Amino acid sequence: MQQVLTELTPPSQMNDSITESNSPLLPSLNEVETIIGYKFKNMELLKEAFTHNSCKDEASQSYERLEYLGDSVLNILFAKEHYFSYPKMKSGELTQLRAANVDTEALARVAFKHGLHRFLKHDDPSLNERVQELMEGIKEHPLHSHGLINSPKILADIVEAVVGAVYVDNGLSIDETWEVVKNLLHPLTTPENLSLNPVVKLNEKCQKMGIKLEYKSLWIETGDIEIYKDNELIGKGNYKKKKTTAKNKAAADAYENLVKLLDI
Amino acid sequence: MQQVLTELTPPSQMNDSITESNSPLLPSLNEVETIIGYKFKNMELLKEAFTHNSCKDEASQSYERLEYLGDSVLNILFAKEHYFSYPKMKSGELTQLRAANVDTEALARVAFKHGLHRFLKHDDPSLNERVQELMEGIKEHPLHSHGLINSPKILADIVEAVVGAVYVDNGLSIDETWEVVKNLLHPLTTPENLSLNPVVKLNEKCQKMGIKLEYKSLWIETGDIEIYKDNELIGKGNYKKKKTTAKNKAAADAYENLVKLLDI
Repeated sequence: MQQVLTELTPPSQMNDSITESNSPLLPSLNEVETIIGYKFKNMELLKEAFTHNSCKDEASQSYERLEYLGDSVLNILFAKEHYFSYPKMKSGELTQLRAANVDTEALARVAFKHGLHRFLKHDDPSLNERVQELMEGIKEHPLHSHGLINSPKILADIVEAVVGAVYVDNGLSIDETWEVVKNLLHPLTTPENLSLNPVVKLNEKCQKMGIKLEYKSLWIETGDIEIYKDNELIGKGNYKKKKTTAKNKAAADAYENLVKLLDI
Repeated sequence: MQQVLTELTPPSQMNDSITESNSPLLPSLNEVETIIGYKFKNMELLKEAFTHNSCKDEASQSYERLEYLGDSVLNILFAKEHYFSYPKMKSGELTQLRAANVDTEALARVAFKHGLHRFLKHDDPSLNERVQELMEGIKEHPLHSHGLINSPKILADIVEAVVGAVYVDNGLSIDETWEVVKNLLHPLTTPENLSLNPVVKLNEKCQKMGIKLEYKSLWIETGDIEIYKDNELIGKGNYKKKKTTAKNKAAADAYENLVKLLDI
């Protein structure tokens, strides 16, 4: 089995081109320790966090178990942090705030920003292309787009797996893991800079104003999702690879048009 | 605002009838401390855990924030426990095993078993009826039915809120909280006694055997979901109040018929 390595230039040296290499040599995981500011007692855990299922051998585990654990760790870390930092915040808002910090797009951006995908041992030839697409999406939407760009789950997985690995390696200390997470995910989304998913934002606005919208899916045929108000098209989004992204684009478009239309 | 109190007889004295009381006196929360085997330093937290949104006054919080926190705590507790107890278990199986312990039905059963709903300060006149329905469902399915009975989310919420309250009260100790959770949720679901959601179970079986099924929804019209194999009806489920429950019933029926039909 040939091992495909992703060798994207780190963002500090980023330009429009992507250098690809099929060299079997991955950069050393010690570099990851420097990036995340944590020194592992058991390097096997970090190795596991950077082993994709497509590329594990019989002796090694792939990152899924650590990713599963890391996901729970991220959830409790942010739940706890926000619960105490915002004692008056309602649970619905707490949910939105946490999601903005740890959803797939947020974590994929973190992985990309720190170039963590460069260390991944994998055999997925489409990864480079997907990272390239994310890079272009980030250029268009420098801040969290809430689903307007398609974020590769595999990048978010790496961050979750790293968090799981740190948590196991440090002897299950929630507090020590938080120190790593806080730095790695910096800058965190706060209530001040929180923006909402376009569909949620559109729904909230429409509910407040008593507006009824109709969604029409032409996604299977053309990749389009259309949104109508009183039989008039007010929003349209196209994305053939993923229906949710098309829907998010349509909602963002509809929101913008509604604001103009109703002067709100 | 009149306060409706649920006064169901605890399971130890359970019979077919349900005694209802509109008395404003709730049983003492000290009884909850005995049930969960934990003594609170700050009783306000326990009060909050038993205050429904329908019944809070200006000075008090309702349980949603604690429920939000408790949900995350339960997730990390089971993720951690299973991660170390089953070092070879795949992440998909870990997910299923955790869900069987902490999904809405599992937690609603816990609340009902310990009579925790009796302590809830609420103003929801439908709660009694929903608890009655759960009680009947439990008689029919003594073990976790994976969605064949409709479990009131409000009961599961109470357990999550109690877990959140214990976690805050004990100074955020994951280990101490686990001791409480382990006893409260006893007996825990293990890989040995894990059964799957009927839809998942049916899908897994069909995928293995290369069988294609078609779901037909008459739910809006009649409450029915039907499942067909080669245009022949092999499963049917009816539940007008909730589509998922109807679908689960149909899948369980289809599974049973498939087993007979194919002699598997």
